[in-house]
Amino acid sequence: MDDCLFCKIINGEIPSYKVYEDNDILAFLDIAPISYGHTLVVPKKHYCNFEEIPKEDLCQIIKAVKKIGKAFKYGLDLKGYNIQVNNGPVAGQVIPHLHFHLIPRKSDDGLKLWPQGKYSDGKAEEVLKKIKKEL
Amino acid sequence: MDDCLFCKIINGEIPSYKVYEDNDILAFLDIAPISYGHTLVVPKKHYCNFEEIPKEDLCQIIKAVKKIGKAFKYGLDLKGYNIQVNNGPVAGQVIPHLHFHLIPRKSDDGLKLWPQGKYSDGKAEEVLKKIKKEL
Repeated sequence: MDDCLFCKIINGEIPSYKVYEDNDILAFLDIAPISYGHTLVVPKKHYCNFEEIPKEDLCQIIKAVKKIGKAFKYGLDLKGYNIQVNNGPVAGQVIPHLHFHLIPRKSDDGLKLWPQGKYSDGKAEEVLKKIKKEL
Repeated sequence: MDDCLFCKIINGEIPSYKVYEDNDILAFLDIAPISYGHTLVVPKKHYCNFEEIPKEDLCQIIKAVKKIGKAFKYGLDLKGYNIQVNNGPVAGQVIPHLHFHLIPRKSDDGLKLWPQGKYSDGKAEEVLKKIKKEL
């Protein structure tokens, strides 16, 4: 897509630190990293979001995520990492080209990504009904 | 696995609010939700983490995530959601049975999941080299 930042990176119009590339996928360092090595994995074909990508292409990308995750473990000497898709601007998606974040983690990195909550009476049943009627 | 909480939920030994189920996958409400409708999607077969699951089973689970994400949008009237795997205790994985989090998001939910950083000189090149040598 002409005005898409990630399409420009894929086409080589904008430089990036390339982590991995094949016919369908490009992975490159996030320039605003949450942690050292934070990588974005994107399909070369432009899909705005997680709804748009066909299942076959989704399988391709999750396999690439797995491959890079393994390289994280050995290359960066990690015990773990987060995989995250922010789907939609309301969820923190800034560039409207589907991307998977891979975020290397260390025990002393101080990142707080996870607040927890609790359902009040009846709320769990209510939300369940709303989701299940669309499945 | 005998002492795995999620295996017990899958086997019906522990009750859960089931969102979706097929032969290979179970999805149920997280009992400590980050947001209203927060759902966990798990393979029925026990895999400790993202490294252990074979590619074929990974494709199955990401397709189920896509299906449930769509039901989120219409059932919960959402504009977006986060998909997250916390891989390894250091990344916030509490139960050692691979699970995908689906976290419904609304513009006024007040969740802060995303601190940003910046590479100092030479650090991007350094980390790139470390990852790429394992690919």
